[in-house]
Amino acid sequence: MNPKPALALILMAVTSTAAFAGEGMWTPDNLPKAQVQAKYGFTPDAKWAERVQKSALRLAGGCSGSFVSPNGLVLTNHHCVNSCVQQLSSAEKDYIKSGFLAKDEKDEIKCPEIELNRLDQIVDVTERIRKATAGKSGEDYSKAEKAIKSEIEKECVGKDSADTRCDVVDLYRGGVYDLYKYHRFQDVRLAFAPELEIAFFGGDPDNFNFPRYDLDMGLLRAYENGKPVKVKEYFPFSKNGAEDGEMTVIVGNPGGTDRQLTIAQLDFARDDELIPYLMLLAERRGLLEQFRSQGAENWRVAQSDLFGTENSFKALRGRLQALQDPAVFELKRKQEKELRDFVDADPARKQKYGAAWDEIAKAVALHRNIEDRYNYIEYGRGFYSRYFEYARTLVRGAAERGKPNAERLREFSDSRLPSVTQRLFSTAPVYPDYEKVKLGWSLAKLREALGTDDAFVRQVLGKESPEALAKRLVDGSRLNDPAVRKALWEGGADAIAKSDDPFIALARQVDGDGRAIRTRYENEIESVIDKNSELIAEARFAKYGTSVYPDATFTQRFSFGEVKGWDEKGEAVKPFTTIGGAFEHATGSYPFALPQSWLDAKGRLDLGQRYNFVTTNDIIGGNSGSPVINKNAEVVGLVFDGNIHSLGGDYWYDERLNRAVSVHSGAILEALRKVYGADALVKEIESARR
Amino acid sequence: MNPKPALALILMAVTSTAAFAGEGMWTPDNLPKAQVQAKYGFTPDAKWAERVQKSALRLAGGCSGSFVSPNGLVLTNHHCVNSCVQQLSSAEKDYIKSGFLAKDEKDEIKCPEIELNRLDQIVDVTERIRKATAGKSGEDYSKAEKAIKSEIEKECVGKDSADTRCDVVDLYRGGVYDLYKYHRFQDVRLAFAPELEIAFFGGDPDNFNFPRYDLDMGLLRAYENGKPVKVKEYFPFSKNGAEDGEMTVIVGNPGGTDRQLTIAQLDFARDDELIPYLMLLAERRGLLEQFRSQGAENWRVAQSDLFGTENSFKALRGRLQALQDPAVFELKRKQEKELRDFVDADPARKQKYGAAWDEIAKAVALHRNIEDRYNYIEYGRGFYSRYFEYARTLVRGAAERGKPNAERLREFSDSRLPSVTQRLFSTAPVYPDYEKVKLGWSLAKLREALGTDDAFVRQVLGKESPEALAKRLVDGSRLNDPAVRKALWEGGADAIAKSDDPFIALARQVDGDGRAIRTRYENEIESVIDKNSELIAEARFAKYGTSVYPDATFTQRFSFGEVKGWDEKGEAVKPFTTIGGAFEHATGSYPFALPQSWLDAKGRLDLGQRYNFVTTNDIIGGNSGSPVINKNAEVVGLVFDGNIHSLGGDYWYDERLNRAVSVHSGAILEALRKVYGADALVKEIESARR
Repeated sequence: MNPKPALALILMAVTSTAAFAGEGMWTPDNLPKAQVQAKYGFTPDAKWAERVQKSALRLAGGCSGSFVSPNGLVLTNHHCVNSCVQQLSSAEKDYIKSGFLAKDEKDEIKCPEIELNRLDQIVDVTERIRKATAGKSGEDYSKAEKAIKSEIEKECVGKDSADTRCDVVDLYRGGVYDLYKYHRFQDVRLAFAPELEIAFFGGDPDNFNFPRYDLDMGLLRAYENGKPVKVKEYFPFSKNGAEDGEMTVIVGNPGGTDRQLTIAQLDFARDDELIPYLMLLAERRGLLEQFRSQGAENWRVAQSDLFGTENSFKALRGRLQALQDPAVFELKRKQEKELRDFVDADPARKQKYGAAWDEIAKAVALHRNIEDRYNYIEYGRGFYSRYFEYARTLVRGAAERGKPNAERLREFSDSRLPSVTQRLFSTAPVYPDYEKVKLGWSLAKLREALGTDDAFVRQVLGKESPEALAKRLVDGSRLNDPAVRKALWEGGADAIAKSDDPFIALARQVDGDGRAIRTRYENEIESVIDKNSELIAEARFAKYGTSVYPDATFTQRFSFGEVKGWDEKGEAVKPFTTIGGAFEHATGSYPFALPQSWLDAKGRLDLGQRYNFVTTNDIIGGNSGSPVINKNAEVVGLVFDGNIHSLGGDYWYDERLNRAVSVHSGAILEALRKVYGADALVKEIESARR
Repeated sequence: MNPKPALALILMAVTSTAAFAGEGMWTPDNLPKAQVQAKYGFTPDAKWAERVQKSALRLAGGCSGSFVSPNGLVLTNHHCVNSCVQQLSSAEKDYIKSGFLAKDEKDEIKCPEIELNRLDQIVDVTERIRKATAGKSGEDYSKAEKAIKSEIEKECVGKDSADTRCDVVDLYRGGVYDLYKYHRFQDVRLAFAPELEIAFFGGDPDNFNFPRYDLDMGLLRAYENGKPVKVKEYFPFSKNGAEDGEMTVIVGNPGGTDRQLTIAQLDFARDDELIPYLMLLAERRGLLEQFRSQGAENWRVAQSDLFGTENSFKALRGRLQALQDPAVFELKRKQEKELRDFVDADPARKQKYGAAWDEIAKAVALHRNIEDRYNYIEYGRGFYSRYFEYARTLVRGAAERGKPNAERLREFSDSRLPSVTQRLFSTAPVYPDYEKVKLGWSLAKLREALGTDDAFVRQVLGKESPEALAKRLVDGSRLNDPAVRKALWEGGADAIAKSDDPFIALARQVDGDGRAIRTRYENEIESVIDKNSELIAEARFAKYGTSVYPDATFTQRFSFGEVKGWDEKGEAVKPFTTIGGAFEHATGSYPFALPQSWLDAKGRLDLGQRYNFVTTNDIIGGNSGSPVINKNAEVVGLVFDGNIHSLGGDYWYDERLNRAVSVHSGAILEALRKVYGADALVKEIESARR
C-alpha cells in the first residue's frame, strides 16, 4: 500500500517531456524557441528577447519588477516594497495601514534600502574560470575560484561601481559561468502602495492559495541625478489584460531551485536543513505573533518581519512536503541512476565523472557535522538583530577593505560595496525594544543549538542570561544612528579598534570563530560540492545536450505558460477571480477585512473585472513582482504568488497542479483609477501604450 | 557513504540480546527473573515484587511516585507537582519562586488536580475480550470492544468508584488484556517543594542532558477521611544511596513506547505525527516565551505550560532524530521482515496473520487523510483553553451520563467519572487574559490546518477573527468559577441545554463534528489497527515466546539496570555529580542561578555529597518521579530525566548510550536537612528505615 500520491501519475507527468508545458526557467540567451513555436505559434526572437530583458528588473533584496513607463515607473508587489513602506512610516503616519500615494513626482519618497538591477549584458566566462581552478582542490580551489571571480567582476565594473553591478553567475551548478552586467539604481522612490489590508487580503491563511483577491502591487520610480530616469525599454500595459488560455511569459528572477541536487544533497535538505529551520521559524513566528499582539505600535514594528517569517515558513513547509513524498524521491533516484548508468557505461566518462556523487555525499556528511556552528555563528542565526548585522559589516568591512580585492570575503569585493553601504547607511528606523526581543531569543537559540557548555557560547554569554545580555548590548549601543555607522565605516580599522560600542565589541569578539567555521565550510564542503557538481553538469550536458535549463540562481529567467485553472481533487479551479469576489469573501475581520477605501468605492467599481488569475508558468520565490506579459511584450498581469502545489517546484515541476498566481492588469488600472484616484499614474501607464 | 551513525554498531548492539542489559520495561507479573539472577546474582521473587508493586504509585496526570513512609508520605518530582505548586500560588504568594514547606501536617495543602493510584491487583481478561470481539470488524468490533471493557471495569469497581479505579490494559498491542485494579487517592496534599530555581537548575538548556545538578523532588501526602493514610508497603531510604556499579531497579509508569509498531506506522509517526506536532509546539513555545517575558505575573502564569511545551518539544525532537536515522529504520525493517518471513513460511500462519501488516498500512493511509480534523476538532488542538475543556466535559458529560455505562464514550464510563469530576471541580485558578492568548492562537491554527474555506472553520469563526472570538468567549463566560461548573454538572442535560454561557454554546455547536470524526477514527482506523496488531502480537508470541516485554502503556513496569556512566564521542561521562558541582556551575543568571537558600546554606552543605547520577535502566516519559531502589527495596535515588540518547528509547533501547538520570537519595536528605530545615520530614523518612 502506498498511501502517498500515486507514483505512476507523477512519473508519467514528468517523464513525458515530449509535451512541452510550463516547465523551465530559461536564461535570456537560451530560450526554448522551437518548443514555444510548436506549442504557441510564436517565436521569441532575439529582438523581442532583448526588449524583454531590458524592460525587466531585479530588486536586489530578493524580488522582481519591471519598467512600465519611459519615465522610470516600476511595477512590483506590495510585499516587495512592504519593508520600505514600513521604514517610511512612524507611529503617527502608518502607510502600511493607510497606503501611500504620491500626488506627483516631488512627493515620491526614497526607499532607504531598495536597489534595482537592469540586466544589460551577458558574457560567457566559463573558460577563464576553468583555467584558473584547473587541477586544484580544497582550499586552493576555493581561493582560486574566489580570486578569479572578483577579478572578472572588478574588470567589468571598471570605475562605475555606483551605477554598474557585475556578478559572475554559476549556471547548471558549474556547467557554465556567465558574467551578468547590470545597471544599478539605488535612488528608488515610492510612488504608490495600497493598504496592507487589500494588498495582502486573506493574509497568511490565504497565502499560497487560490482563489485570491489581492491587490499585491506597488509602484516605484527609479531616479538618477535627482531626476526620474528615462528608459528606452519598458512594458506597456495591454489593453484588456490576461485572457483564458492565452500564452503568458513571465520574466523575473527566481531565487533558487534544487532540481539538480544529488540524492545525498536532497536527504540533507530534508533532514538537516528544512526540518530544523522550520522549527526555528515556527518558534520565531510564535514569538513575533505574541509581540505584535501587544498594541498597535508593536503591530506596526513587527509586521514586516512576521510576514517574512510566515511566508518562509509556509513556503519551506511545502518544500518539505514534497521531500516527504516517496514518489518525489523515487523520481529523483531514477533520474540520478539514469545519469550514473550513462557515466558508468563508458570507461573514459566513468574515470572523469564517476566519483562525483560519492565525493558530494562525503562533503554533505561533513556539512552535517558543522552546519549548526556555521548557521548560528557565521550565518547569523544566533544574532538576530539589525545592530549585530551593522556591527559585523563595520568590523569586517574595515578589515576587508584593507586587503587586495581578490583576497577579500566576496561580499566586500569592490563590485559589491555599493550594496553593502546602501544597507549600512540606511535611514530605516531601528526599534531598540524590539531588537532586544529578537536578539535575546536568538542568543537563547544559539545556546540551544551549540550547547550550554560550548566554549563559544560561554564566551558570548559569560555569566549573563541571553535576555540580560541583549538588553545590555542594545541599551549601550549607538549603532541605531546612521551617522554613527557612517563615521565608523569611514574611520576604518582604526575607528573600529577604538570603538567601545558593545555591539562592535561583540562583533570583534566573535569574528575569529565566524571566519574559522566559514573557512572550513568553504574549503572542505563548498569547494568539493562546486567541483564535483561541475563534473555532474558536464556529464549531464554530454547526455542531454544543452536544451535544458539550469537551476534558478536569482538571475533573469523566462518562463512560458498559459492562463489555465487546474483540477483540485476532482473539482475544477477556475483561472480567474473578480473584484466582486473580494466583497463576497470579506468578513470584516483581519485578515479578511477590506479597507475603507474599497468599501467606499464599491459602487464605482466594475465588480466583474478580472482580479487575480493563475497560469502554468514555472516560477518560484524571487519571481514576486515579475510582470506577466503577452507575445507583444505587454503587461497582462503581475505575479505575486504560487498556489500550494507550486511549493514542491523547488525539486520538480508538476504541470497538472503547479500554478503561478497574478494580479490582472485590468484590476490594477481599475483600482488605481476608481479606488485611489491615482489619475496621474494611470495616465502615465496608459500613455505608455505603443 | 553513510553519514549517519554507523549502522553496524547499532545493529550489533541490538541483536546481541544474549547479553541482558538495561533493556526492558517489565510488567510486575512477568519479571525477567533468570536474566536478573544471571547478571546481578539476585532473584526478584514474588514477595519482593509484591512489596515493590504496592509501594510504588502512579500520578494519574502522567507521572510516577512512591510511598516513603508508613504515614502516607509520597516522593515524586518537582516537575510532577509543579502545576499544583502553581495552582496554590498567587501574585502575592509565589511558591514556584519561594518553594513550599509545611511545618507540620496541618499546614499541608490539598493539590486540586492530583490523583494517586496504587496498583493492588492484576487479572488476565484476554479470553473474555477475545470472545466478545470474535468475528467482528469495523464499527461492530469497536463497539463490542468498548462495551466489554466498560463492563469489566464496572464489575471490578463495584460500588467503590471513589476509592477504586479499574482499567483494562492492552499489553503487547492486543496480545494480552489485563485488568489493573488500583486504590485511588484524590485527597493529596503538598508537603514540600523546593524553589523552581534548584528543582530545574539549568532549565530547558540542561533538560535531557547530563551532568546535572537538580533537586527535582517534591513531597506529597495521601489522605483519606481527612487523615494521612497508613500504608503497609513503602520504600525506606537506603543508608548511603546509590553506589557506582550497583544494580538499580526502577519501578514506575512509562507512558508509552513504539517499539512494536510496523514500518507503515513508523513512517506515519515520523512524517505525519512528529513533524507537524513539533512545528505546532515550536510556535506555541515562541508564543509562551514572549507572553512570559511580559512581567513577573505573566511569568508565573505561563511557566508551567511553557515547561510542558519545552519538555515535549525536546523529547519529541529526540524521537524524530531517531526516526531520521536510516540505521534505526534498517533495524526495524529487518525485525519486521524476520517476523513476516516466519509467518509466510507456514501456510496456516500465513493464512491467519499474513495480511495484518497491509491492513494496518491501509488504516494508516486513511488516518493520514483525517488526522488534522481529528486532532484539531476532537483532540482539542484547535481549542487550547481550560474554558473549552471544561465546557466540553460538561456538554458531553451531561449527554453521556444519560446512557447505559457500556455505550458511553470511554472517558465517561462509571469507573472513570471520579477523575473527570476531580479536574472539572478543581479550584485551580483560571487566568482570563492568558486563556485569550492561548485560545486565539489555537483557533488561528485550526483555521490554518483545515483551511479558511472549511465549513467547520467557517461555522466556528463566523465573521470574527480568532483573537476577537477568543476575547468574546472568555469575557462572556463564567466557567472560570468552579461553583458554576459544579452546578452545570449537577444540573445535567437540562442545565446544559438552557445555559447561555458562550463556551457551553461553542461546545454544543462543535460536538457533532467532534463525535463524527471520532467515530470515523474509531471504526475505520483504530479498530483495524487494534485487530491486526493483535494478530501480529500472536505471531510474535508464536515466534519469540513470552519472554519479551510489552510496549509501555502508562502502567507499572520494572526496569533492571546499574549505576554506570557512558562514552560520549570518546569522552567518559562519569555517573555522579556532587552538590559542590552545582555551585561551580551556577552563573547567577536564570536558569543557572541558585536560590538564596542554597547560597546561604553553602557553608553547611557537604559539597562532596553525590547529587545526580545516571543508570542503564530503560525508562521513558511517565517514569518521572519513579523511585530508584536497590535489592532491598530501599530508595537510592529518584528518577527525573533521561539523557539525550534516551529519547530514541521510544523506538529501541541503546545500551551503550541510553541513561536514566536521577537525584541521589543522600542529596535529598542533605538538602531537606541543611537547606530547608525540614526536620520533621527528615525524621519521618529516616525513622521509616527497617
